[in-house]
Amino acid sequence: ARSGVPEAVLGSGKTVEEIADLAATAVETTGRAIVTRIDAAGAGAVRRQLAENAPKATIRWDERSNWLVATAPAFERPDVDARVGVVTAGTSDAVPAGEAAMIAAELGADVTRIDDVGVASLARTIDAVSRLREQDVLVVAAGREGALPTVVAGLVDTPVIGLPVSTGYGHGGEGEAALSGMLQSCTALSVVNVDAGFTAGTQAGLIARRVAAARGG
Amino acid sequence: ARSGVPEAVLGSGKTVEEIADLAATAVETTGRAIVTRIDAAGAGAVRRQLAENAPKATIRWDERSNWLVATAPAFERPDVDARVGVVTAGTSDAVPAGEAAMIAAELGADVTRIDDVGVASLARTIDAVSRLREQDVLVVAAGREGALPTVVAGLVDTPVIGLPVSTGYGHGGEGEAALSGMLQSCTALSVVNVDAGFTAGTQAGLIARRVAAARGG
Amino acid sequence: ARSGVPEAVLGSGKTVEEIADLAATAVETTGRAIVTRIDAAGAGAVRRQLAENAPKATIRWDERSNWLVATAPAFERPDVDARVGVVTAGTSDAVPAGEAAMIAAELGADVTRIDDVGVASLARTIDAVSRLREQDVLVVAAGREGALPTVVAGLVDTPVIGLPVSTGYGHGGEGEAALSGMLQSCTALSVVNVDAGFTAGTQAGLIARRVAAARGG
Amino acid sequence: ARSGVPEAVLGSGKTVEEIADLAATAVETTGRAIVTRIDAAGAGAVRRQLAENAPKATIRWDERSNWLVATAPAFERPDVDARVGVVTAGTSDAVPAGEAAMIAAELGADVTRIDDVGVASLARTIDAVSRLREQDVLVVAAGREGALPTVVAGLVDTPVIGLPVSTGYGHGGEGEAALSGMLQSCTALSVVNVDAGFTAGTQAGLIARRVAAARGG
Amino acid sequence: ARSGVPEAVLGSGKTVEEIADLAATAVETTGRAIVTRIDAAGAGAVRRQLAENAPKATIRWDERSNWLVATAPAFERPDVDARVGVVTAGTSDAVPAGEAAMIAAELGADVTRIDDVGVASLARTIDAVSRLREQDVLVVAAGREGALPTVVAGLVDTPVIGLPVSTGYGHGGEGEAALSGMLQSCTALSVVNVDAGFTAGTQAGLIARRVAAARGG
Amino acid sequence: ARSGVPEAVLGSGKTVEEIADLAATAVETTGRAIVTRIDAAGAGAVRRQLAENAPKATIRWDERSNWLVATAPAFERPDVDARVGVVTAGTSDAVPAGEAAMIAAELGADVTRIDDVGVASLARTIDAVSRLREQDVLVVAAGREGALPTVVAGLVDTPVIGLPVSTGYGHGGEGEAALSGMLQSCTALSVVNVDAGFTAGTQAGLIARRVAAARGG
Amino acid sequence: ARSGVPEAVLGSGKTVEEIADLAATAVETTGRAIVTRIDAAGAGAVRRQLAENAPKATIRWDERSNWLVATAPAFERPDVDARVGVVTAGTSDAVPAGEAAMIAAELGADVTRIDDVGVASLARTIDAVSRLREQDVLVVAAGREGALPTVVAGLVDTPVIGLPVSTGYGHGGEGEAALSGMLQSCTALSVVNVDAGFTAGTQAGLIARRVAAARGG
Amino acid sequence: ARSGVPEAVLGSGKTVEEIADLAATAVETTGRAIVTRIDAAGAGAVRRQLAENAPKATIRWDERSNWLVATAPAFERPDVDARVGVVTAGTSDAVPAGEAAMIAAELGADVTRIDDVGVASLARTIDAVSRLREQDVLVVAAGREGALPTVVAGLVDTPVIGLPVSTGYGHGGEGEAALSGMLQSCTALSVVNVDAGFTAGTQAGLIARRVAAARGG
Ligand SMILES: Nc1ncnc2c1ncn2[C@@H]1O[C@H](COP(=O)(O)O)[C@@H](O)[C@H]1O
Ligand SMILES: Nc1ncnc2c1ncn2[C@@H]1O[C@H](COP(=O)(O)O)[C@@H](O)[C@H]1O
Ligand SMILES: Nc1ncnc2c1ncn2[C@@H]1O[C@H](COP(=O)(O)O)[C@@H](O)[C@H]1O
Ligand SMILES: Nc1ncnc2c1ncn2[C@@H]1O[C@H](COP(=O)(O)O)[C@@H](O)[C@H]1O
Ligand SMILES: [Mg+2]
Ligand SMILES: [Mg+2]
Ligand SMILES: [Mg+2]
Ligand SMILES: [Mg+2]
Ligand SMILES: [Mg+2]
Ligand SMILES: [Mg+2]
Ligand SMILES: [Mg+2]
Ligand SMILES: [Mg+2]
Repeated sequence: ARSGVPEAVLGSGKTVEEIADLAATAVETTGRAIVTRIDAAGAGAVRRQLAENAPKATIRWDERSNWLVATAPAFERPDVDARVGVVTAGTSDAVPAGEAAMIAAELGADVTRIDDVGVASLARTIDAVSRLREQDVLVVAAGREGALPTVVAGLVDTPVIGLPVSTGYGHGGEGEAALSGMLQSCTALSVVNVDAGFTAGTQAGLIARRVAAARGG
Repeated sequence: ARSGVPEAVLGSGKTVEEIADLAATAVETTGRAIVTRIDAAGAGAVRRQLAENAPKATIRWDERSNWLVATAPAFERPDVDARVGVVTAGTSDAVPAGEAAMIAAELGADVTRIDDVGVASLARTIDAVSRLREQDVLVVAAGREGALPTVVAGLVDTPVIGLPVSTGYGHGGEGEAALSGMLQSCTALSVVNVDAGFTAGTQAGLIARRVAAARGG
Repeated sequence: ARSGVPEAVLGSGKTVEEIADLAATAVETTGRAIVTRIDAAGAGAVRRQLAENAPKATIRWDERSNWLVATAPAFERPDVDARVGVVTAGTSDAVPAGEAAMIAAELGADVTRIDDVGVASLARTIDAVSRLREQDVLVVAAGREGALPTVVAGLVDTPVIGLPVSTGYGHGGEGEAALSGMLQSCTALSVVNVDAGFTAGTQAGLIARRVAAARGG
Repeated sequence: ARSGVPEAVLGSGKTVEEIADLAATAVETTGRAIVTRIDAAGAGAVRRQLAENAPKATIRWDERSNWLVATAPAFERPDVDARVGVVTAGTSDAVPAGEAAMIAAELGADVTRIDDVGVASLARTIDAVSRLREQDVLVVAAGREGALPTVVAGLVDTPVIGLPVSTGYGHGGEGEAALSGMLQSCTALSVVNVDAGFTAGTQAGLIARRVAAARGG
Repeated sequence: ARSGVPEAVLGSGKTVEEIADLAATAVETTGRAIVTRIDAAGAGAVRRQLAENAPKATIRWDERSNWLVATAPAFERPDVDARVGVVTAGTSDAVPAGEAAMIAAELGADVTRIDDVGVASLARTIDAVSRLREQDVLVVAAGREGALPTVVAGLVDTPVIGLPVSTGYGHGGEGEAALSGMLQSCTALSVVNVDAGFTAGTQAGLIARRVAAARGG
Repeated sequence: ARSGVPEAVLGSGKTVEEIADLAATAVETTGRAIVTRIDAAGAGAVRRQLAENAPKATIRWDERSNWLVATAPAFERPDVDARVGVVTAGTSDAVPAGEAAMIAAELGADVTRIDDVGVASLARTIDAVSRLREQDVLVVAAGREGALPTVVAGLVDTPVIGLPVSTGYGHGGEGEAALSGMLQSCTALSVVNVDAGFTAGTQAGLIARRVAAARGG
Repeated sequence: ARSGVPEAVLGSGKTVEEIADLAATAVETTGRAIVTRIDAAGAGAVRRQLAENAPKATIRWDERSNWLVATAPAFERPDVDARVGVVTAGTSDAVPAGEAAMIAAELGADVTRIDDVGVASLARTIDAVSRLREQDVLVVAAGREGALPTVVAGLVDTPVIGLPVSTGYGHGGEGEAALSGMLQSCTALSVVNVDAGFTAGTQAGLIARRVAAARGG
Repeated sequence: ARSGVPEAVLGSGKTVEEIADLAATAVETTGRAIVTRIDAAGAGAVRRQLAENAPKATIRWDERSNWLVATAPAFERPDVDARVGVVTAGTSDAVPAGEAAMIAAELGADVTRIDDVGVASLARTIDAVSRLREQDVLVVAAGREGALPTVVAGLVDTPVIGLPVSTGYGHGGEGEAALSGMLQSCTALSVVNVDAGFTAGTQAGLIARRVAAARGG
């Protein structure tokens, strides 16, 4: 309902028919449908439905991060003059990081991915510093002990949003250690819930818009 | 260690002598000492120590929010052209909200307090909308069920940082319900830990600086 | 065992044969069988069993909320003169809300559904106020941060029963944040367990009966 | 803010001066002040403040349940024609039960206390059945394993609100076992948080008002 | 390893071949194999293996409680002169209750089942008192809020072992409320873990043996 | 209320006057008062009260385990022919172990203390085996990791009741690790709550009575 | 990234293609691929991929512990002169114990398995003492109550690393009781997470290397 | 009981007399007393007791880390040829770090403190690398998010024992985030409980002895 924040359909817990209907309606009424947590079956259903309702729509589906964006030909994505960096430690962080990157981009930000900079190989983290400093806001994804946002925030002045990832088994597994570690971080961060790439990306996008508005964009 | 973010002394868990020493050193080396979670005894010790080491220093102590800022005569607080709103639902939110407001101000932001807008009296929340919209970033403090940031974020486009407050007894008390509710919020927020006014204010201040930099300030 | 409260069969954890037997017995002995948490297979088994034992029975099965009510031709559902409102924020609340509505109706209350009034779009919540005020008791379902019952209870004088829904992932997910938020609500509510639509609807129905009895009905 | 529900001052976490000020204001503006969780020192402060501001006010202070009600001479407590029963298992339940009874009475209900009917001596519980059945709504307080509301609700048709009490040590202590047991009850109850006598009494009072309104009262 | 306590094979987490091998070895070396948590596939594998290794063995398999006992023709089950009562509230308690009854019987006790005496229908519980009093030790199974052992122990002098059952959903579900309620019980009980019918039955059997030994049996 | 189980007054959470009144009444009506969790102040109050009401009563107060037993001259403690062993690992186990020993003795059992047999010095545990085997039932207290009951139960055929003690700091501290370890024990035990010496001793005493009854005592 | 510690591929959460690619790359670049948590399908994919990329590689796959090690013909495993003992209580400990043994061996240590020495049969534990004392460091795996490392560490001077195993159901199940018990152990241990055989084996291997280096090897 | 590991008296939860007695006995029988968690009052009592029993004993008391070591004149502390490094992030880590350093030294190791190398100022951590590499085993203390052991272990080949410190407030506070983060660490560590400096130091000391033994020391 927030003006300017696109509505997204959360695919999980819905039937493929429900998803397809909601996506078709979104394309028709707003020119764009954003669906998260959607699998191949859901993406197929959307494709079939749009083939009927909106045959000229463009569909992008990210198999890895499980999102789908469909746009009507006339739709113009906003473009704001501000940079969002999305940072990951390992391959398992890709799913929520991809979700964050997508929604920040749909909000109009210039999104850069900075991958494979986990704290177990600190040299790579330090090598990335200049790329990290170029961004207006950073989303930093990390699973297991979730130390990466703490380390990154100690190296830059940019606001950092910690995104805990549901990796790890045993005590503190499924992202709980990463979440509580980020909440306890000895460098100041704000945080979103485990795997909440959508929330992190939206927050980063809203900050980017404020920055861009200040730039006169 | 972050460049530009002032170091603060966390008073809790330190003896009054340790606090006073650290504060005196900070005034001497950086022109300013910021101490959080400091009570009357601690503030007295700082006063006595500075009377010796830095007799011309100015001391502000907030008895309610338990912070102290001491500045050398020559110290010039940064001033950045961006607005931080600090919002509360009730009087028990004042402690962490005051901490957030202090540190955002010390980072140079223009800080506005918007108080007593809790969701139990929704009309007052809605009345505050135009003041809320004037800010570049909002810190919204709430205890118990912590619904206020969710409601505020649904009313404005500004980025909202949820600050859970350690009120409430029984199940979900001590701010745990507020924290988990903000992490689950159905409008996108980022969040800090329970009572972490310092973290919320720093994050808001860093965002304000980015916005001000974009403004050419 | 409570006099006047119909026994219901909890389908989950029972074999389809057990469910069908219990349902047939209930129709034969009390004129009505109420089954909750029953899927298509269970509903089919009940249908086949009743085709034999009680071929004139009427069967209603709600595929969405997973309940089934079978009644003998002679059965007369009680009818009491009091109104129960069942309120939801979004589509994922429909399952327990439907269970609550069913059992309140079977207890004889006049049940009204008030849907899609979630706090992320506060205008719609406020638009519903007059409909909310017409009810004698409200069951308000909400998942994720579960703020809706708190907001509704601040707008009306009616007793509100909060019904947390098992949506949301990560910390406080599966309805735990909603439950603890409702228990911490800054407006007075009573609460049932996560997804306990049956309990909420029964409590609402018992209140409706007291009100109706006072009305002389 | 709910129309008709008196505002109460929560004493815990406030200084005695703050409590006294808020109480004096409430007496002046609404004719009545209700304070909960107030100790002897707080009650003394209120007494002194009212001696100045409202010397004709009547003050009742319950040392056991830690509440205080002050009323201006002109204040007329509402009187509604409906009965609230407040039930306890043992002496340790008296604190929250007393809070519930007070607020239900201030809302205008006829309140009856039914004490010492714990499940360890089942004969006494059963002896109380006719008194239990006379009520329009029951608040049932219980600590430790919290079985009493379950047993009571199996014996009567009246709506039962379970009020868990913070007794018990070890695992499930401090009322957590009682709360989770009431949420899991095999007879339908609604529940409030641990020690939330104020919430239970308000909910019972709201139900009583609905019943009384139906009675034409 | 305890002398006199038969070793049992825990079926869950083992392949059917492993189970069959262990069962065959137990029959050969001790004359008896006891397997718990074994499904139809496991029972089939045991049957085939014994057809080869011990074709004269007798096999009993309880499909409901998922246990299997195989005995060589020469095996003589101990017989001790003491009575164990196994009590349940509802059908879902049958699984762990059946496991408890089996192992107590294999230890030689005279086992009596006392079913369907849940606290929601207190009259039935009270009707069972004389049967409850005839036992030397009671295992009382209960799920959800787990109140039954508390109520039973208040009615008899016999030692009661509470056996929490993994029923119930939401907060305190999966037997956690039942376990913590029994640990908090206001009448003295000892307790075993959720669904630990094997442990409860063994403890009851050991007590029965002590009693029988005292009887001179 | 259990016939034959003496009522005990739980001192914690009561004023010294309340304790003294309840103790005096118990001596007058039943010939004996048992108070647990009573400190020096409480014991003094009981002494003064009995000096008035029952000047010939005998008082025993255990400063270490915080219990008090007062008996009228005519009172005859039951004496049953069965042995309860109370076993500890270290000095910190003395408090709940002493409570267990007292109540088992008041129920009439012959109580033996077997101390300082913790698993860190396994030789001492093994040396105690013959004393352990002489008992009819064992209460085994252990804090921290709580391994002692598991080890003891592997060495004897006697029923073992595990009594977790609230020692230990950090994760699993305050007896939680000991409790969950005993519930998971790989040798069959039954368990009581953390520090619930009263419950363990009562359960042991009830078993002792059954054994003694079988002995014809 | 640690020099000398081989990188391992964590198979869980990766597709079989990803695993096969990573394994092939590891063989090509370092001469060895270590994969943990890999099932038959994953092992098959690695086999096929290496048949193409590195047809002369040797593959070992442990079906029980789910690890795979592939080595190029030229690869020479380090060989360090120090002994690691891997100790288990029962068959369910085999999976993480096997993982620990593999990685310690790949780090070059001489690994000895000491199995079936659980505390329920203490005699076997004591029989193993001389074998336990021969090792330079011990990894002791245990599930359920996890008492074995505590008992072992009381019998030897060797450093003991506790490895909790995810066995057990109910409260403290899935290894949580074992973990918290080991953290609370009354004999000094260090600990790894539940099922973290990889971590335990690596830590043991690093200690073995220090010892071997001191030996001049 | 472990041969060669000195017994230590845990001061907390004991009276000063008990502590003084145990310390005096230890000096008399073993030549040395080690007491942990002892405050000024306890230290005074030990001093007075030894003035009587062992007037020539030497006493060291660390006010900060709350330990006391008393030695008879003839006592010779073992001296083993191996290095233990004790690493901290901030001043609040000093308490458990000091306990770890003391016990490792009493076991005979050469102990080096490496302080103030927290991850918020990564440059200092990296500057310490050569000092870190000189050690045979490292104890790394860290509170709040506890990232330091993960970062250190990525920089060195030495075995690292993580020691979580009970700092931090809110969710994951009191060392719980640090503990779970270390258990989830993406570089292999072993871990002890929160504030368990004694355990960490003992484990490090045992490893040092093995290394020294291998060195022929
Ligand atoms: N109230 C606070 N809450 C959280 N962090 C704080 C607070 N006050 C200060 N800090 C942080 O803690 C650091 C000081 O820690 P210390 O070295 O213990 O004084 C500062 O540099 C801040 O980053
Ligand atoms: N969906 C539900 N949630 C909670 N309780 C239920 C539900 N459906 C039925 N029940 C209750 O469970 C009882 C039936 O339990 P059972 O004997 O297992 O079929 C009914 O009498 C109801 O009180
Ligand atoms: N230390 C104790 N732990 C648990 N229950 C106790 C204890 N002491 C007494 N009790 C029980 O608590 C009841 C007394 O509770 P109360 O009415 O609060 O004095 C007694 O009848 C006992 O069943
Ligand atoms: N079973 C395991 N448990 C914990 N960590 C593992 C395991 N197997 C591999 N690892 C670690 O996880 C890293 C690989 O992570 P990834 O990049 O996801 O393959 C390796 O370098 C190891 O440090
Ligand atoms: Mg990470
Ligand atoms: Mg609030
Ligand atoms: Mg909601
Ligand atoms: Mg009770
Ligand atoms: Mg039950
Ligand atoms: Mg122990
Ligand atoms: Mg074990
Ligand atoms: Mg740290």
